[in-house]
Amino acid sequence: MTTTAYLHPDRLLPADAATRSIARGLYERVAGAPILSPHGHVPAEWIADDVPFSDPAQLFIAGDHYVHRLLHASGVRHEQLGLGGARVDPREAWALLAEHWHRFAGTASGYWINDVLGRVFGVEEELSPATADAAYDRVAAALLDPGFRPRALLERFGIEVLATTDDPLDDLAAHRRIAEDDAVATRVLPTFRPDAYLDPEHPAFLRSATRLLDGRPASWRAYLVALAEQRARFAEHGGVSVDIGMIAPTTLRTDETDADAILQRALAGEATAQEAARLRAYGLYESARQSTEDGLVLTVHTGVRRNHHAPTLAAIGPDGGHDIPVAAEYTENLRPLLEDFGLHPQLHLVLFAMDETLFSRELAPLAGFYPSVFIGAPWWFLDAPDSIQRFRAATTETAGFYRGSGFIDDTRAFLSIPARHDMARRSDAAHLARLVAEGRITRTTAERIADDLVDAVPRTAFKL
Amino acid sequence: MTTTAYLHPDRLLPADAATRSIARGLYERVAGAPILSPHGHVPAEWIADDVPFSDPAQLFIAGDHYVHRLLHASGVRHEQLGLGGARVDPREAWALLAEHWHRFAGTASGYWINDVLGRVFGVEEELSPATADAAYDRVAAALLDPGFRPRALLERFGIEVLATTDDPLDDLAAHRRIAEDDAVATRVLPTFRPDAYLDPEHPAFLRSATRLLDGRPASWRAYLVALAEQRARFAEHGGVSVDIGMIAPTTLRTDETDADAILQRALAGEATAQEAARLRAYGLYESARQSTEDGLVLTVHTGVRRNHHAPTLAAIGPDGGHDIPVAAEYTENLRPLLEDFGLHPQLHLVLFAMDETLFSRELAPLAGFYPSVFIGAPWWFLDAPDSIQRFRAATTETAGFYRGSGFIDDTRAFLSIPARHDMARRSDAAHLARLVAEGRITRTTAERIADDLVDAVPRTAFKL
Amino acid sequence: MTTTAYLHPDRLLPADAATRSIARGLYERVAGAPILSPHGHVPAEWIADDVPFSDPAQLFIAGDHYVHRLLHASGVRHEQLGLGGARVDPREAWALLAEHWHRFAGTASGYWINDVLGRVFGVEEELSPATADAAYDRVAAALLDPGFRPRALLERFGIEVLATTDDPLDDLAAHRRIAEDDAVATRVLPTFRPDAYLDPEHPAFLRSATRLLDGRPASWRAYLVALAEQRARFAEHGGVSVDIGMIAPTTLRTDETDADAILQRALAGEATAQEAARLRAYGLYESARQSTEDGLVLTVHTGVRRNHHAPTLAAIGPDGGHDIPVAAEYTENLRPLLEDFGLHPQLHLVLFAMDETLFSRELAPLAGFYPSVFIGAPWWFLDAPDSIQRFRAATTETAGFYRGSGFIDDTRAFLSIPARHDMARRSDAAHLARLVAEGRITRTTAERIADDLVDAVPRTAFKL
Repeated sequence: MTTTAYLHPDRLLPADAATRSIARGLYERVAGAPILSPHGHVPAEWIADDVPFSDPAQLFIAGDHYVHRLLHASGVRHEQLGLGGARVDPREAWALLAEHWHRFAGTASGYWINDVLGRVFGVEEELSPATADAAYDRVAAALLDPGFRPRALLERFGIEVLATTDDPLDDLAAHRRIAEDDAVATRVLPTFRPDAYLDPEHPAFLRSATRLLDGRPASWRAYLVALAEQRARFAEHGGVSVDIGMIAPTTLRTDETDADAILQRALAGEATAQEAARLRAYGLYESARQSTEDGLVLTVHTGVRRNHHAPTLAAIGPDGGHDIPVAAEYTENLRPLLEDFGLHPQLHLVLFAMDETLFSRELAPLAGFYPSVFIGAPWWFLDAPDSIQRFRAATTETAGFYRGSGFIDDTRAFLSIPARHDMARRSDAAHLARLVAEGRITRTTAERIADDLVDAVPRTAFKL
Repeated sequence: MTTTAYLHPDRLLPADAATRSIARGLYERVAGAPILSPHGHVPAEWIADDVPFSDPAQLFIAGDHYVHRLLHASGVRHEQLGLGGARVDPREAWALLAEHWHRFAGTASGYWINDVLGRVFGVEEELSPATADAAYDRVAAALLDPGFRPRALLERFGIEVLATTDDPLDDLAAHRRIAEDDAVATRVLPTFRPDAYLDPEHPAFLRSATRLLDGRPASWRAYLVALAEQRARFAEHGGVSVDIGMIAPTTLRTDETDADAILQRALAGEATAQEAARLRAYGLYESARQSTEDGLVLTVHTGVRRNHHAPTLAAIGPDGGHDIPVAAEYTENLRPLLEDFGLHPQLHLVLFAMDETLFSRELAPLAGFYPSVFIGAPWWFLDAPDSIQRFRAATTETAGFYRGSGFIDDTRAFLSIPARHDMARRSDAAHLARLVAEGRITRTTAERIADDLVDAVPRTAFKL
Repeated sequence: MTTTAYLHPDRLLPADAATRSIARGLYERVAGAPILSPHGHVPAEWIADDVPFSDPAQLFIAGDHYVHRLLHASGVRHEQLGLGGARVDPREAWALLAEHWHRFAGTASGYWINDVLGRVFGVEEELSPATADAAYDRVAAALLDPGFRPRALLERFGIEVLATTDDPLDDLAAHRRIAEDDAVATRVLPTFRPDAYLDPEHPAFLRSATRLLDGRPASWRAYLVALAEQRARFAEHGGVSVDIGMIAPTTLRTDETDADAILQRALAGEATAQEAARLRAYGLYESARQSTEDGLVLTVHTGVRRNHHAPTLAAIGPDGGHDIPVAAEYTENLRPLLEDFGLHPQLHLVLFAMDETLFSRELAPLAGFYPSVFIGAPWWFLDAPDSIQRFRAATTETAGFYRGSGFIDDTRAFLSIPARHDMARRSDAAHLARLVAEGRITRTTAERIADDLVDAVPRTAFKL
C-alpha cells in the first residue's frame, strides 16, 4: 500500500528517538502479518455476493456511525448525510465531511479515514474543503474497479479470519456459499448473537422467541435446548463464538420454576423489569454452561445505554451513534457463573469494557486468576491509540500480555479493518518499546510478545 | 511580565527535545491571546469599585481555599490563617505558607502561586522560610500601587471577558456600573446561579424561594415564570449562562401536580429528601427548557459532597476547602432532558466532572453525538497539568477538540487568572505537540487547533 | 548486591535521556536508604526462630499468591504447584514457572522475581526453560547458606522497621523474643488486625468474639473495652497500627442499644446481613475513636471481594489469589468518622484503594483537607511501576507529596521486600525527574522530596 505525505511512516510510535527505533523494529515484524478478525459486523452477503461498495459518502459516512455521530454533534443534520432514508447527493455529503474535517483531528475515526484514503485509495492530500472533490473523484473511480470489491480487498488486506455477527435463526446461507467457494481464502465465520432471545425487553424478543420455540412448549428447558441446537448449527458453519451484550452482566443460577414463569409471562408481553433482568441473568449463566458443552467462546460486553435519544432511534433506526456508556461491573455480577464454570477447560469468556475503570480493577484481576477469562481488547470509544496505551498500562502489570483477546476491530466499516489492526500493531509496538527502553523487559522478550499478540494470543482466546 | 529563575520558560512543555520544540511553537502562538473567562467567582464589586487588594496573606491564603485547605491538612489551624473571623498578623500567616511551601511542590496551587509571585509581582526567589519576608514586603508594597488594582490588572492581564457568579435576585448594580463605565474594556458578565432556588435542601432555599415568589401564588408554573424573568434580567445585563451544581444531575419531565405539591411542602419546610430530589430533577429539566427559549448556556457540575466536615462549616462558613467529590453519572441522569432538548439549536449544555471516570465513559460520547452538549474543561481538583493531559487523552479520541468548553478558571483568586489560562495553553500545546510528534496530526492542523482552543472554541460554547 | 545482564541498571527510569539523567541522580540519593516497612505479612516466627527458607518452588511460587494466580490463569493446576497440601517435586513446579515465564513479562511479579534472582541470588541469566535447572540449583544451594536465613537477610537488606500482621489475641511471643534478642537490629512490630472481631460475617467471628469476651457479658461497651485492652497490649509490644479491611468502609455513630442487640445476635449466629453491616460500621467508627485515645495509626483498605471462587477457597484456603476488587467509596462512607475525629491530632488514618478511581476523586481531596488522612501507597494490583506513575499523577496535583503513607510492600514474600522498595524508589525518582524536566519543580526541591519519601513521610504517617 502507498504512503502519502499526511501519513507519517512512524505514526503512533513514541516521540523519543531511541524508543521509537525499538518500536519501529517491533512494528516491522508484524506489520504484514495476516489479519485475524474474530469479532466484527461486516455482513457475510457482501463477501458471498462480492457486492461493489456504493458511493464514497455512503461508504465513509452513512455506513459508519463513528463518523456521522461526530458530524451530527457538529451541527450537521442526519438528513444531510442520507440517513433515515433521506436522498442526498453523495458529493454534497462528502463536502460536509471535508468542511468539518478539522473536527476529526485526534479522533480514532479521523486516524482511520486518513489511513484508508491514503493507503487503500492513494489519495495524496489530506481531506479539506479544497481537496474534497479530488478525493471524492478518486474514491468514486476506484469503487468502480473490480480490485475494490470485497473479495479482492479481503486478499489485498491479508484477512485470514473474518467473523460476522448473526441472528441465531439466520440461515447462514451466505456463509455456506462462501465456504463452498474456493475463490475465497478467508475463513468467514458466523457469530451467534442471542441478545434478542435472552432479553424480554429487547424490541425483537417476542418475535424472536416465538420463532425459536417454533411451537414447542414454552418451558425454560425447551428454550435452552432450542438455543443449543442453533449454537450447534453455527459451530457446524465454522462459528467459534457467541456474543452477548447486556447493560449489566448479572448472572444467576437458574431457578427453573421461576425461569419457566418469566418466560411465559415474557411471551405474553407481561414480564416486569425485574423479571426481565432475572431472565437475562439466567440466560447469561446458561450461555456459559452451554459453552462448557459445545466449546464456543463466549464474548460479553456490558455497560452501554443503547439508543439514548429515542427520537433519533425513531428517525434513523438502531446503531445511530447514540449508544452511550454507563458505569459497569463484572466482579460481583459474574460470580455465580465463574464459581460454577470459571475453571472449566472448555470455557473461554472474553470480557469487554467501555468503562475503563474496569481495566485495572476487575478485568486484569479476573483474567489473572481464572483460566477461562480473557481480557477483551479496548473497543468502542476506547479502540484508539491513547486508550490502547492506557489499557496496556492498566492490565499488563497484573495479567501480563497473554491473558488478552488480541485486537478486535468490531467494525462494519470493511475498508477500515487494516487501518484498525495496523493502529493496534503500532500501539502495541509503542507500548512494548517503552517497556524495553525503561529496562523492564528485554528486546528479545518484546519481539516474542509482539509476534504473539497478532497470532498466538487471538488464536488461543478465540480457538482459531 | 518578567520571568524569574524558578519559572522555567518551557515549563509544562514535554521533556523530549523535538516534541518540546513543536510545543513551544504552538504555545507562542497563543501565549498572548486575550483571556476569555466565561465562568468564575470574582465579585463584580471588586471591579466596579476598583477595590485595592488587602494584605498578601488575605490575598494568597485566606482568600483561596485551594491554599488554606492544604495548609490545614498539614496541621495549620484555620485560626492561624485568619479564617472564621480570627485576627492574625498577616506576616505570620505568610510565614506559615513559606514554612510549608515544600508541601505545595507539584500541586496546582503551588504552580499558580509561583507564577503569580514571579510574573505579576516580580519576586525573584522561590518562596521559603528564608525568602518569606522579602517576598511579603515586595507583594505588600505592590498592593499599594494603583497598577495593582483590579481595573489595571484586568487590562494588564488582557482579560476580554470575565464572568461572575451571582444570586438570581442580585440587583446587578455593580455590573451596570461597570457596563456604563468606559474605563473598563473587559466585558464583565453576570452568571445566573439558581441552586438555592432549585434545591429545597439548600440552607437558603426558604428565604430565596419566598423572595423570588414575592407574594405570587406558590405554583410550580408561577415559580418557573419568576425564574425566567430573572434569567431575562441577567441576559439584559450581558449574562450568557446559567450555572447549576447538584450532587446528582437527575432530570425528570415535570409532573405539575407533583411539583406544585412539593414546592408548597418545601416552602413550609416539610419536603422529604425524596421530594427534594424530585424537585431538583424537575428544576434541572426546566432550566434546560428555559435555555431553549432564552438561549442562555446551561453549565452543570455534579458529584461533590459540599461541606463534608460540618464543624468546619460552622466555624468558617462555606467554601472552606472540604467539598469532597463522589462518584458521578450523567448518561442516565440527563436522559429525559437530552431526549427532549438535546437537539435543540438554542441549547448549549456544558457538563463538568470532578470524577474523571466520566471523561471517556460519558462526556466524550455524549458530546460526540448531541450538538447541545459541550465537554466542560477539567476543573476543581482536575484543573492541573497532568489532569489536563489525562482529560485530553480521554476525550479527544472520541470527540475531538471542538466539542469542549475551552479552559475555565472557575476562580475567585483574581491574580491567578493569567497563571491558570497560561497553564492551560501550555498544557494544550504539550498535548498537541505530542500528537504531531507521533504523526497523528499535522503541524498545520495543530496550529489551527491551538488558536481555536483559546478563541473559537470558548466563544462557540459560551456564545460570546 | 550484584547486577546481571537482564537487570538494566536504569530500569524504571524514563527513556528520555535528559530526564533519565535527573532521575538517576534522585534515585542514587535514596537507593541505599534503610527500608521502613510499616505494613506487611511476614510472620514474626520466621525472624524469632531464624527459620531457613524451604525450597525455591515453595519460596517463589506456593508462598506467593501473585505468582501462583497467574500460573493458574495460564492453565497450571494448583496441585501441580504444591498448593492445597499436594506433594510435588519442587524442581518440577519450578520448571512450570520457567515454562510460563514469558507470561510474567511486564507484570509486577515478573519484575520482582527478576530482581530477587539477580540481586539476591546472583542468577546471571533470565529464567527460561533452558536456564531453569541452573537457576534452581543456585537458589537451592544458597538457601542452605546461613547468609540466606531471615536474620542475615534483614541485615543485608537494610530493613530498619518491619511490621507483621497479627490476630488481636496473638500472644506476641515471637515479637517478645525478637525484642529481647540483641542480635536483631530491626524493629519488628506487631499490627493489630481485628477484622475477624468486627465482622459478624467473617468465618472466624464466632470463635474470635467468644475468646475476646472471655466470659464477660456480651455488651458492645464491654466488647470495645476488650478490644482496647488488646490494642494496648500491641502498643506495649511496639505496635504502631491497627489494620482493617472491609468491602465497604461504612461508618456509623454507635447506637449502643442497637449494637448490643446485634452483637448478641451475632454471637448466636443469627445476625442478618444488614445487622452485620451495621456492626462493621460501628466497629470502624469506634476503632477510629480508640485511635484518638491510644494513638495507634488506623489503616483501612476496602473494595475487594475476598475468595471470589468458593471451590478454590475450599481446596487451598484463603489468600488463594482470587480476591477480586470492586468499585469503592470513601467520601460518604467515612463522613461520620471524619466529622467526629477527622481533626483529632492523635488520629492518623491511612486509606488504601484497589479502585484507582479513588486516587484523584476521593483520596487526594480528603488528604488535602483532613490532617488525619494519609493517602495509602498504591498496593495490591496497583503496586507496580505504571500504576505508581498514575497514582502520583492523580494525587500530587491536589495533595502534594507530603500527605502520603510512603511505600508499603504489604508482602509475605520476604525476599522481595528490597525489590519492591527499590521499585518504588525508582518510580518516584522517575516521577520527580519528569516534574523537574517539565520545569514544574526545581531539582533542589525534587531532591528534598526524594529523601523525604523514604524517610520523613513514612515516619510521620506511621509515627515511627
